Amino acid sequence: MIYVCRREHFNAAHKLYNPKWSEEKNKEVFGPCANQNWHGHNFELLVTVKGTPDPDTGFVIDLKKLSSLIRDEVIEKLDHKNLNMDVDFMQDKMASCENLAMEIWKILEPRIAPISKAAKLHCITLYETPRNYVEYFGE
Amino acid sequence: MIYVCRREHFNAAHKLYNPKWSEEKNKEVFGPCANQNWHGHNFELLVTVKGTPDPDTGFVIDLKKLSSLIRDEVIEKLDHKNLNMDVDFMQDKMASCENLAMEIWKILEPRIAPISKAAKLHCITLYETPRNYVEYFGE
Amino acid sequence: MIYVCRREHFNAAHKLYNPKWSEEKNKEVFGPCANQNWHGHNFELLVTVKGTPDPDTGFVIDLKKLSSLIRDEVIEKLDHKNLNMDVDFMQDKMASCENLAMEIWKILEPRIAPISKAAKLHCITLYETPRNYVEYFGE
Amino acid sequence: MIYVCRREHFNAAHKLYNPKWSEEKNKEVFGPCANQNWHGHNFELLVTVKGTPDPDTGFVIDLKKLSSLIRDEVIEKLDHKNLNMDVDFMQDKMASCENLAMEIWKILEPRIAPISKAAKLHCITLYETPRNYVEYFGE
Amino acid sequence: MIYVCRREHFNAAHKLYNPKWSEEKNKEVFGPCANQNWHGHNFELLVTVKGTPDPDTGFVIDLKKLSSLIRDEVIEKLDHKNLNMDVDFMQDKMASCENLAMEIWKILEPRIAPISKAAKLHCITLYETPRNYVEYFGE
Amino acid sequence: MIYVCRREHFNAAHKLYNPKWSEEKNKEVFGPCANQNWHGHNFELLVTVKGTPDPDTGFVIDLKKLSSLIRDEVIEKLDHKNLNMDVDFMQDKMASCENLAMEIWKILEPRIAPISKAAKLHCITLYETPRNYVEYFGE
Repeated sequence: MIYVCRREHFNAAHKLYNPKWSEEKNKEVFGPCANQNWHGHNFELLVTVKGTPDPDTGFVIDLKKLSSLIRDEVIEKLDHKNLNMDVDFMQDKMASCENLAMEIWKILEPRIAPISKAAKLHCITLYETPRNYVEYFGE
Repeated sequence: MIYVCRREHFNAAHKLYNPKWSEEKNKEVFGPCANQNWHGHNFELLVTVKGTPDPDTGFVIDLKKLSSLIRDEVIEKLDHKNLNMDVDFMQDKMASCENLAMEIWKILEPRIAPISKAAKLHCITLYETPRNYVEYFGE
Repeated sequence: MIYVCRREHFNAAHKLYNPKWSEEKNKEVFGPCANQNWHGHNFELLVTVKGTPDPDTGFVIDLKKLSSLIRDEVIEKLDHKNLNMDVDFMQDKMASCENLAMEIWKILEPRIAPISKAAKLHCITLYETPRNYVEYFGE
Repeated sequence: MIYVCRREHFNAAHKLYNPKWSEEKNKEVFGPCANQNWHGHNFELLVTVKGTPDPDTGFVIDLKKLSSLIRDEVIEKLDHKNLNMDVDFMQDKMASCENLAMEIWKILEPRIAPISKAAKLHCITLYETPRNYVEYFGE
Repeated sequence: MIYVCRREHFNAAHKLYNPKWSEEKNKEVFGPCANQNWHGHNFELLVTVKGTPDPDTGFVIDLKKLSSLIRDEVIEKLDHKNLNMDVDFMQDKMASCENLAMEIWKILEPRIAPISKAAKLHCITLYETPRNYVEYFGE
Repeated sequence: MIYVCRREHFNAAHKLYNPKWSEEKNKEVFGPCANQNWHGHNFELLVTVKGTPDPDTGFVIDLKKLSSLIRDEVIEKLDHKNLNMDVDFMQDKMASCENLAMEIWKILEPRIAPISKAAKLHCITLYETPRNYVEYFGE
């Protein structure tokens, strides 16, 4: 079993704001992240798949195909977007890194096997800043 | 003459959008950066001052004081903000990295000498992403 | 289960020196790390907690609170200090990265639940240099 | 149990080319990586061992000895080399990152215990570029 | 005057070998860089242009256009190539970082003005490894 | 004219403490940097030389020789040392980054020409942390 990882990135706006709460409670809980007019980040996304290398290619998965998949199904929907307003799969969810990583898993998990029968999605890692990141292993 | 540099960072939303132009022209010129609902970045700001070291301290400038100045006068106004909507000195200007760097120069330049008579502002470097940045030397 | 990580840093002096051994044996085992007059590092500390996101916040843990906890209980005691001389919990221990990571775990582990009932400490990662680091999972 | 990691690097040429296939099929599968005249990378290699710290040293393993081992047994054979032509243990294998990581494991695994009885090899991480890497845990 | 910088990268093989010299002299002067069967690097290329921002866009130069220019005219010719064998403008030259940076300048310098009348090429920075790089300012 | 840069690193302890001043004044001016028992850093040193490439080698300077020079004359004297106590050329000087960079210039400047007649020292860049650094151009 080998783990193979591909890094991509996207730039997006968001805010952390719970509409069930008052402005004051949002400020108290989320601080400057609740700024009404948004803020944003250069997100870094790492997608790790696992499997056994194909003897003909030496690959667990063709990284060009994995990169294209991530770009077409995830980056295209998030890059230069507002996570709260523009992204269908984030509707009615807090735009936290945790929730975003879980949604990215749901999108990519069923799409790995069609690229490489030998490979399964292993981990989604999402950096919001160089000092804050989350990891999700699908369970 | 020694050059001393301090790095700080802020996270902000913006869009590149010229209100004198049609939606189509904005899309054509600015591409996804014109997204109506904003996008954002983790900006990295480097402030370089120059001068001769004080023999009593070995310092051109006290970096704790320089860091406090940058935080109070610049970061406080930009971090977790919308550059187009929330920042007084960016009103009526395109929210480009170039314009932002020049405005940061204007704010900091007169405030260096009061911290250290030996020092002058030399350069503002502003990273929008790890692959795009600008430098401004005040002229 | 989501894993959430926060990176902090501190600058400290230390030496690797076993007082039960001769000067010669210390030099032989620890090489330049045994330098009598100390040396030092910019340590990078990563603290990973795991849990399930709160639906109201989207957070496993409030990263501002986690950051404050790390700063108050760990960084405050280590930053700009001598690990052998100034740090109570390193008394009578070799000032190795391994031992330091295990002590940081002991400090932080009981203090995570009071910040977030949903979260548990998962890993302490400590970089001594960009090329040498240790990880401790509490067992 | 503590995990200790050492990072080293080497610069090498390679190509991805299956001699059982036609030129066309190689181009189709490997794209520019199949370039007849080679290309190359600055590879980054991370070697992680696990064990319990020795109370006399505070070390799971002496990192100077681990570094020397990696340099003598791995880097010496790969640095400034052609992975397809110059490296005995890559003969008759696709020069993929996956295969290279597994071969590095085979070389290092039996050589860790002689340096530190308390330590076992845990993971080989190999970066081909800052955006593509693999991990191998020996099974 | 604002300086604007774009970073791109390419992966290539090369060797440092002077055909006028004996094998022994090449080994003596270039060491492992003279390896007959090549080695390679992940090169990082930074292109800096200077000019005054256009008031309508806030840009010295459209970075999407600068990026496309660099990719079409430079990266396309160097990425996944052998610098000694595959690159027309490096024929009959030592494949050193210095010579490569000067050739990249010659390619890009006349092609900046057609993208932005306000801009001129200022600097080519070329990293061969994270620890070795060159800068060329055109004179 | 081409500028060629080599990066090296060293780990050292120091404190900022003016013996002409009281303990109180040192605390006030230098804050935690005045800690009696020292602290330390992973310093990063960049040495830039300038010159014209030799047509036979393509080099302004042989980077292996430049690296050896920096290691023998600078790193050897600073790595795993106490800058205040162990370093002859820092005696009676504040152990600031500014002063250290100027002393490194004095050591290296006369030793560049003997390695490469075509090259002159251009700049010493010294990082104390990833966020604080100084540059010195010799005047």
